[in-house]
Amino acid sequence: MSGLGLSLIGAGRGEPGGPTFTGWNPAEGVALEPRYHAARPEEVERACSLAAAAAPSFAALSSRQRAVFLEHIAEALLAAEADFLAVTPKETGLPVARIQGELGRAAGQFRQFAKLLEEGSWVDARIDRAMPDRKPLPRADLRSMLRAVGPVAVFGASNFPLAFSVAGGDTASALAAGCPVVAKAHPAHPATSERAALAIRAAVAACGLHEGVFSLLFDAGTEVGASLVRHPAIRAVGFTGSRGGGQALMALAAARPVPIPVFAEMGSINPIFILPSALASRPQAMADALAASILQGAGQFCTSPGLLVAVEGPGYEAFRERLVEKLGAAPAAPMLTRTIAERFREGVGRLAARSDTRTCVKGESQAARGAAALFEAEATHVLAEHALTEEVFGSCAVVTRARDVAELLRVASQLEGQLTATVMMDAADESLAADLLPTLTDRVGRVLMNGVPTGVEVCPAMVHGGPFPASSDGRFTAVGTGAIRRFVRPVCFQDVPDSLLPPELRAENPLSLWRTVDGVLKRE
Amino acid sequence: MSGLGLSLIGAGRGEPGGPTFTGWNPAEGVALEPRYHAARPEEVERACSLAAAAAPSFAALSSRQRAVFLEHIAEALLAAEADFLAVTPKETGLPVARIQGELGRAAGQFRQFAKLLEEGSWVDARIDRAMPDRKPLPRADLRSMLRAVGPVAVFGASNFPLAFSVAGGDTASALAAGCPVVAKAHPAHPATSERAALAIRAAVAACGLHEGVFSLLFDAGTEVGASLVRHPAIRAVGFTGSRGGGQALMALAAARPVPIPVFAEMGSINPIFILPSALASRPQAMADALAASILQGAGQFCTSPGLLVAVEGPGYEAFRERLVEKLGAAPAAPMLTRTIAERFREGVGRLAARSDTRTCVKGESQAARGAAALFEAEATHVLAEHALTEEVFGSCAVVTRARDVAELLRVASQLEGQLTATVMMDAADESLAADLLPTLTDRVGRVLMNGVPTGVEVCPAMVHGGPFPASSDGRFTAVGTGAIRRFVRPVCFQDVPDSLLPPELRAENPLSLWRTVDGVLKRE
Repeated sequence: MSGLGLSLIGAGRGEPGGPTFTGWNPAEGVALEPRYHAARPEEVERACSLAAAAAPSFAALSSRQRAVFLEHIAEALLAAEADFLAVTPKETGLPVARIQGELGRAAGQFRQFAKLLEEGSWVDARIDRAMPDRKPLPRADLRSMLRAVGPVAVFGASNFPLAFSVAGGDTASALAAGCPVVAKAHPAHPATSERAALAIRAAVAACGLHEGVFSLLFDAGTEVGASLVRHPAIRAVGFTGSRGGGQALMALAAARPVPIPVFAEMGSINPIFILPSALASRPQAMADALAASILQGAGQFCTSPGLLVAVEGPGYEAFRERLVEKLGAAPAAPMLTRTIAERFREGVGRLAARSDTRTCVKGESQAARGAAALFEAEATHVLAEHALTEEVFGSCAVVTRARDVAELLRVASQLEGQLTATVMMDAADESLAADLLPTLTDRVGRVLMNGVPTGVEVCPAMVHGGPFPASSDGRFTAVGTGAIRRFVRPVCFQDVPDSLLPPELRAENPLSLWRTVDGVLKRE
Repeated sequence: MSGLGLSLIGAGRGEPGGPTFTGWNPAEGVALEPRYHAARPEEVERACSLAAAAAPSFAALSSRQRAVFLEHIAEALLAAEADFLAVTPKETGLPVARIQGELGRAAGQFRQFAKLLEEGSWVDARIDRAMPDRKPLPRADLRSMLRAVGPVAVFGASNFPLAFSVAGGDTASALAAGCPVVAKAHPAHPATSERAALAIRAAVAACGLHEGVFSLLFDAGTEVGASLVRHPAIRAVGFTGSRGGGQALMALAAARPVPIPVFAEMGSINPIFILPSALASRPQAMADALAASILQGAGQFCTSPGLLVAVEGPGYEAFRERLVEKLGAAPAAPMLTRTIAERFREGVGRLAARSDTRTCVKGESQAARGAAALFEAEATHVLAEHALTEEVFGSCAVVTRARDVAELLRVASQLEGQLTATVMMDAADESLAADLLPTLTDRVGRVLMNGVPTGVEVCPAMVHGGPFPASSDGRFTAVGTGAIRRFVRPVCFQDVPDSLLPPELRAENPLSLWRTVDGVLKRE
């Protein structure tokens, strides 16, 4: 399969004319065919206008009709496995097994939303029936449900070319909500993006939907993305990437005549708190698990652990030494792009140059390859210096030595917003864990115990998000069925005749939804 | 009851030292006793620090414990009725019956949230149980629920001195969520604000809660409010008022090192679409109902109708003439403040001076009194001139004459975000109403038929909010139990031992909540 290198605008294609770029093979350091053409301004305009035109009919589909569409997308993605295996490893440096797993995850996300829509109760239908005889004033009939906000701009992430990119979680949740999507391809994997877009477009056609339900734009720089966020038809933005990128989009969106929300997932250092009894009882096992988590995917996960906090005492040295051994033995791994590899080297270099860190592991990182790095710092320094808790995207962590439990708790209480925090504990640590928990739940989206933060399950209970700066709005998750909430808003219908109501709110409850009727949840 | 004129900082009081101001009787045009002292910077700091200190224990209360607290507030508010009746009519110009009604509504809001908390399922508990044998990877145990975001700043609204002010819906929903509140009194009703704050503070004491759960700050200008929004302890803002005020707070909040959400409800023109058959069959009855809605509370409601769109034809003249008659006969009514009355006169003057409007009613508005105004304009002009659809806060409406149904639909499709839209229809209008509905639901928070938009029911299905500029974030309602969603975010617990989980997520379901277990809603 060889791509055309042109944006997909509804059922059509863009044209050459704008700046161009190519994919790049990070493992071999060579540019890839074909050349991709950035969308021209009139193509951005057309994609957004088509999305606006598609919005009413797409939003008016029943949840169940949209479920069928999502199933079609899942099928089309899986059917393209051979194509993805031909292009994605080349342009990302990721191994075939990872691409296979991620494809399954991407398809699985669409299927999980399809299941949510099939059941249908996610619309949070609320019905307060009329009370014509109420004194002093009668009550009207009031019915509300969640409805699509309108076209959503989705920015593909570099680090999950399938599961968080063009056909990733943002696209799946926006389409599930009933919002047309205009996606902006990440320039690090244009061929993968094009192939994923073709799969979605095939599903749009197969289901007879308006072509504006989905478009994909290529961008050689930041111009296309910026015009997309500024376009009046766009009602919300989904983004996964760097803090700088996310904040730039937030500023653009807030400065619009009509501001719109940006859901930017910007990563974090995902602190690990190793409690004393656990540290004493199983230092090597924990170090093994954490080293594997730090090394996984060359550390290029939003949830990669970057700060390991332990109290000095029994097990501490063994824990650190085992980490040194494991991370030191790992070969330098290809990173996703040259830029990511350069930034990783800069970050590692900054930590190595500090007088308040001790360099434990720092291998040779060349070209697009990054070698794991480990530093050690005293908790007093971590408390004093914000630079020690800034994310270095890649396999890089700082072991933080606390003198006592109070200092460990202080480190927790100074954390900025995080996607995750992990507590390693034994039964004897339970009371300390109970003390730590409120501090962590105030600062993170997901607290986990005796596990590793990498590996984000796609399920109803998942929260992948967290207080700023982990994400732009910690009230929403980017992963799991809860992600649909980002792209809907409630609309209330007062005294609207039954025949004009959406089926979700009709008296007969034709879809058999769980609904809150006069304050009571029921399915009748 | 005579106020002290000093801020309420936790269990203590502020001190004189900052700028001062007084309440003002709009009906008599005289200043009121006592003099109020703006909170000094150290008092803002102390109120916010106390709120931050109170946050963990307040959030850790069970929903049911917080329900008891809310019931105490409702009791304390009702017990202070005589005090409110002594001060509120004087400083607002509102009649006694309105104050009594609003007090009932304010207390009722706390009770409605108490009921929601008693039942408890609002936390949206989701449980995905571990699958240790799943292939290729086991699934961890994942459980999530909504938790308080932390201290909330609440700005009292001028137009509802009880139901949307210090003890109003924002405070009720924030406290219900488990968020301490630092309220900023509206300078138009300081005595009412002080009395309401004393009621909440009495409930804090009666329930043995941390004093930081509630504080009230006075402000002579905008300094105190601005420092409040900038304070790092504040995690969200609730505001009801003008678009200028709301946008200023949005800008402040977005510029913080850690941005926070502002829930600003900024009003709208609440368009009314009168469909042809209804217009022909009952022009006078609709005019009577709409005139009463326009005149209600001197038009000082967020939901007051400001744009009446009808197609010329049978009933049109009778409708307009009856409106002219009713609005022309209404005496000038005292408005809440001199500033509001001045802005109303300016707005009416601007509409009267235009060449594309015809002045139908324009009484004498003097001092703090406002006389109802009615203008007529052709739909073509309304479509061409944004100024004709800008809100004039007060009893002021523009009758818009459409030449045909298509023009009426075009007016609807050009609307900016609105709190409400109303359709007046008969059975013969149903197909036109069906055409209009998707356009309206895309632009408003609440669509109503054959009613008036004033009168916002407090109930689970209510949506009081709408796309910008009606509110800053149309994904949330400011009225009804859904308002609690503004001040919570989901937190996920992965493999956390049952003993360390909040009761809402424990295996035994000790609170008998409705929970989503492995994707299925159940109560076991």
